[in-house]
Amino acid sequence: MESIMSDPDWLADIKFSDQGLIPAIAQDSKTNRVLMVAWMNRESLLETVNSGYSVYWSRSRQKLWRKGEESGNVQQIEEIRLDCDGDVLTLNVVQKGNVACHTGRESCFFRVLKDGQWHTVDPVIKSPEEMYNNE
Amino acid sequence: MESIMSDPDWLADIKFSDQGLIPAIAQDSKTNRVLMVAWMNRESLLETVNSGYSVYWSRSRQKLWRKGEESGNVQQIEEIRLDCDGDVLTLNVVQKGNVACHTGRESCFFRVLKDGQWHTVDPVIKSPEEMYNNE
Repeated sequence: MESIMSDPDWLADIKFSDQGLIPAIAQDSKTNRVLMVAWMNRESLLETVNSGYSVYWSRSRQKLWRKGEESGNVQQIEEIRLDCDGDVLTLNVVQKGNVACHTGRESCFFRVLKDGQWHTVDPVIKSPEEMYNNE
Repeated sequence: MESIMSDPDWLADIKFSDQGLIPAIAQDSKTNRVLMVAWMNRESLLETVNSGYSVYWSRSRQKLWRKGEESGNVQQIEEIRLDCDGDVLTLNVVQKGNVACHTGRESCFFRVLKDGQWHTVDPVIKSPEEMYNNE
């Protein structure tokens, strides 16, 4: 990525947390289903906007996380929205492979609360082994 | 609310932050549109589940925020989901008055990034004065 001389105006409207992060909700652009929630920092958001594909900030690995880099399940950006407080983003995406979750499911939100228990209600579309093992 | 003898099992599966909070994404149960994102603590989540209506934790006011208490725009819970990491909730809700945002719009996500600027693309359905001034 090229060096940035100064922040674009749209970036200045965003209220990053004390850690320099903002949560991003990725939704299927056709059904609006929430697929996953991850974090972005300034750099990952700029790369997302410039590249047209979701790039998050991995808090555990402390590095850019180009979604789908390993699994191939990239997210093509259709629309980015900012909320009234300027501290949450939604991303409307086309999810390659129809799998956003590392468990091989369409969405990370596959557990429903019912009768005092979490019930897994969505199928595994692609096994994690198949997604991450390219030997 | 009655005193709780011990945490129910489903609550033990939730990974609250160091501050004891979890973000909750409220979506329209019919269209899946993301309406707002707010925080819940243990107490507000229990009250949400027991009452069937969204109760958040206001970080700025440090108190329970029974959504719609002032405006009348309550959120009736249809479904609660937990993500794979156990640290984000989605709420499928029926939004009374079709207004979730304090600006009087359906959703807090009314600004779209286009050509390097945020564009407000959604109309005000009910004026904030009308919502909050009941004199």
